[in-house]
Amino acid sequence: MPLSNSPANSNPSPPPVPWADLRNARNPQLNSEGQLQHLLSLEGLSREMLTHILDTAESFLALNSHDVKKVPLLRGKSVFNIFFENSTRTRTTFEIAAKRLSADVINLNIEASSTSKGETLLDTMDNLAAMHADMFVVRHNQSGAPYLMAEHLNQLGIKDIHIINAGDGRHSHPTQGLLDMYTIRHYKKDFTQLRVAIVGDILHSRVARSNIHALTTLGVPEVRVIGPQTLLPSGLREMGAHVYHNMNEGLKDVDVVIMLRLQKERMAGALLPSEAEYFKHYGLTQAKLALAKPDAIVMHPGPINRGVEIASDVADGAQAVILPQVSFGIAIRMAVMAILAGGKQ
Amino acid sequence: MPLSNSPANSNPSPPPVPWADLRNARNPQLNSEGQLQHLLSLEGLSREMLTHILDTAESFLALNSHDVKKVPLLRGKSVFNIFFENSTRTRTTFEIAAKRLSADVINLNIEASSTSKGETLLDTMDNLAAMHADMFVVRHNQSGAPYLMAEHLNQLGIKDIHIINAGDGRHSHPTQGLLDMYTIRHYKKDFTQLRVAIVGDILHSRVARSNIHALTTLGVPEVRVIGPQTLLPSGLREMGAHVYHNMNEGLKDVDVVIMLRLQKERMAGALLPSEAEYFKHYGLTQAKLALAKPDAIVMHPGPINRGVEIASDVADGAQAVILPQVSFGIAIRMAVMAILAGGKQ
Amino acid sequence: MPLSNSPANSNPSPPPVPWADLRNARNPQLNSEGQLQHLLSLEGLSREMLTHILDTAESFLALNSHDVKKVPLLRGKSVFNIFFENSTRTRTTFEIAAKRLSADVINLNIEASSTSKGETLLDTMDNLAAMHADMFVVRHNQSGAPYLMAEHLNQLGIKDIHIINAGDGRHSHPTQGLLDMYTIRHYKKDFTQLRVAIVGDILHSRVARSNIHALTTLGVPEVRVIGPQTLLPSGLREMGAHVYHNMNEGLKDVDVVIMLRLQKERMAGALLPSEAEYFKHYGLTQAKLALAKPDAIVMHPGPINRGVEIASDVADGAQAVILPQVSFGIAIRMAVMAILAGGKQ
Repeated sequence: MPLSNSPANSNPSPPPVPWADLRNARNPQLNSEGQLQHLLSLEGLSREMLTHILDTAESFLALNSHDVKKVPLLRGKSVFNIFFENSTRTRTTFEIAAKRLSADVINLNIEASSTSKGETLLDTMDNLAAMHADMFVVRHNQSGAPYLMAEHLNQLGIKDIHIINAGDGRHSHPTQGLLDMYTIRHYKKDFTQLRVAIVGDILHSRVARSNIHALTTLGVPEVRVIGPQTLLPSGLREMGAHVYHNMNEGLKDVDVVIMLRLQKERMAGALLPSEAEYFKHYGLTQAKLALAKPDAIVMHPGPINRGVEIASDVADGAQAVILPQVSFGIAIRMAVMAILAGGKQ
Repeated sequence: MPLSNSPANSNPSPPPVPWADLRNARNPQLNSEGQLQHLLSLEGLSREMLTHILDTAESFLALNSHDVKKVPLLRGKSVFNIFFENSTRTRTTFEIAAKRLSADVINLNIEASSTSKGETLLDTMDNLAAMHADMFVVRHNQSGAPYLMAEHLNQLGIKDIHIINAGDGRHSHPTQGLLDMYTIRHYKKDFTQLRVAIVGDILHSRVARSNIHALTTLGVPEVRVIGPQTLLPSGLREMGAHVYHNMNEGLKDVDVVIMLRLQKERMAGALLPSEAEYFKHYGLTQAKLALAKPDAIVMHPGPINRGVEIASDVADGAQAVILPQVSFGIAIRMAVMAILAGGKQ
Repeated sequence: MPLSNSPANSNPSPPPVPWADLRNARNPQLNSEGQLQHLLSLEGLSREMLTHILDTAESFLALNSHDVKKVPLLRGKSVFNIFFENSTRTRTTFEIAAKRLSADVINLNIEASSTSKGETLLDTMDNLAAMHADMFVVRHNQSGAPYLMAEHLNQLGIKDIHIINAGDGRHSHPTQGLLDMYTIRHYKKDFTQLRVAIVGDILHSRVARSNIHALTTLGVPEVRVIGPQTLLPSGLREMGAHVYHNMNEGLKDVDVVIMLRLQKERMAGALLPSEAEYFKHYGLTQAKLALAKPDAIVMHPGPINRGVEIASDVADGAQAVILPQVSFGIAIRMAVMAILAGGKQ
């Protein structure tokens, strides 16, 4: 007995599908016309789509120099930041982006423990959807959670609610990938002449895979990944990346260095010997950076561990574009929200 | 030496009245003209008042189909969500409702421990009132706390600040009761021909008493309550309800089934044998639901415990209106806020 | 490689300066034209500047009697409440003030533990600045933290981001000092004829020093401080204050009594014998208040400890202006934000 302007509730409860399987399911982020319905991953997005998002972000970036930094594109719309995993920094960027689009923002921190079962996650979402949410920004420590939510909405035929993946487990963090692409385009203009190196803990990174995919899609001819054997996943060569274990070799003549954050908790395990040892081999110093092209830029998703994966003088140096990345990140999130909301009008 | 446009602070501190006594005190929610000054309980509200609130909610429900879901009725007004007891779900519904009315919303989570004494509770409120709050949405684990606050404002002669009870102990949760009435009216149109059954833990429920009162006031000729002896309070028959311990008998030919949530912590005590045993006798299954009228609707305040008080296939089935209840709840909260704010202009 | 409309990140990381030394550094709150760039402390502000802030607050106070209590002065601007130390009450007053100026407000509670090093605090701020914040309201349990942040912005040449100190350790809480001045002016009109007594734990107070300075600057001829030897810092006489250990002597013929909150945790240490003993000697009772002028006002920054530093009947009595202080506090915070934001346009 569904209410006409509410999500139908006559769906059978989904079977307890393991998260891992969901990652391999058909990417449900495009609608039947090929438009962006949800943003779950950069994988599956075409060069045209990626370029459209970057172009839209560029138009929003100009707003920052205006006295009133708001546009009414999402006025009257409700954006729910649903964070099953705490991340003040990421939540803040989405909150700012949504408010600059004049949306109402509702922040929800939900303990993952109370929604560890897929069923309960969907009950939670069904309830929030019934409050007439327009957009869910979802962070979850389980890979695939945003996919499950998007698939559920798609199955119910709900087209006016959009999911944005703000980081799911080790799987994906697409707005971080997009802001990385934006940063490279801003400073290097043309993707088709670049050598890009991604350095560090590729294995546990939410963005390395997305970035390799996006760089390749945007036409970068040479993507390198640099890291110790224990922090590199299999399958990198199949994705088109060149693998290096020696950082001096890997950085040679690159245009872009993307450093990854080293999760300090990895140190406790058997994967790495010590912070000092890691820094010696894979920390970015001025000496190592000198091997790259003279105008190479240094990127990092933040927050940085000074003296672990990057030396302080490099992080604060003239080649670092770490803080501009943060600025671009706001514009990227505004662009994604505007494109998703625009698709339904 | 009161400031002209501030609440006077020359009141003597109130005597330490036990909470329990306050529940029996004169209902302070109507002003001298009989208009709604605060919303504390459905008890004491006339059929006309209840119908006025439902009609107002109906006008807001239409907003949801608009592209911009906001109206400027509370622009420039400050709504404080003061939650002495954590309830993300309820807080969210009030936050959304207030933002759709264009109010500024301030969320305050206050640990009950720091305000366990009535005096301190009132000092806290006096301070927030001095910040020129317009509305307090209050959730407290002590029955009567919102009454104490409303009485305090009334004693000070403050008429431009309104209290909304968002749940006080086991006592009352009037907006939940109102959205239940709205749901029944939406699907069944005429209250005066209905049989309504309320099933489960009546004793600890915030809404069962309110609902019995409201249903009777709105003209429902037959209200049934169904539950085990240990979960039924005394006095139900005096309120006009018919008591059943056998669910099959109680559901026979009813038009509306209101399931109550079973607090799992009750299981630990002596009140109930086990979840499985409870479900066997008082869980709503398709088989039991078949005893009701074919077009009976199934309601639940949420969140549901699948397999405890309700079977999954019933919760997701065609007769369930649990998610529409959530949508109606936003409209009801908007209506209550708009009526309260309108009363002072 | 700084982005034109982002903060430059080419600054060397600052040396690990001890917090204590920063308090003695040049007050960085005025820009080169002598206008207010940040609000860090009342020390260093001229009589003209203090009067300008109080006059601006007076114009905002009138807003409270309007039906729509908002003005668009900060529309499109982002105010970040960064609280490294939890203080719901203070955070709320800034949140309300910013929303009444139509700003977007982002609340961040950051555990001091994760930013205990000055470097990391500045990395955090650099990141938030890169999100195009316009104003940071900062509360920190370390004296000097807001100074460090302001100095950092000044060194980078960033002029369009403003810091407001919302309380740093025991050092300063300038908006509280300003609202105290506003309250005195509201009730007593002329500063130049007054005797003002500040009573209690001067040693641990964030506002006593600021108030002594501001009162003197505004022309109050006689400022008294009253408290036990163990709770009075050295240097009070050099600041122009008259010191009393006997409250009956100290209150004689004063026009204004500013009571300070006694932190209950002080009781555990060796500084004070007991609450009862403290109340006997330094608690404000009607009998002691009778020694002041008949029209003396009683102030307190709140929250009050009834029966510890102030008797209940005095706190609720006709001479208390404690709740009007709260109302004035909103207007003062609006004034400070408006003046800071106006300075850059």
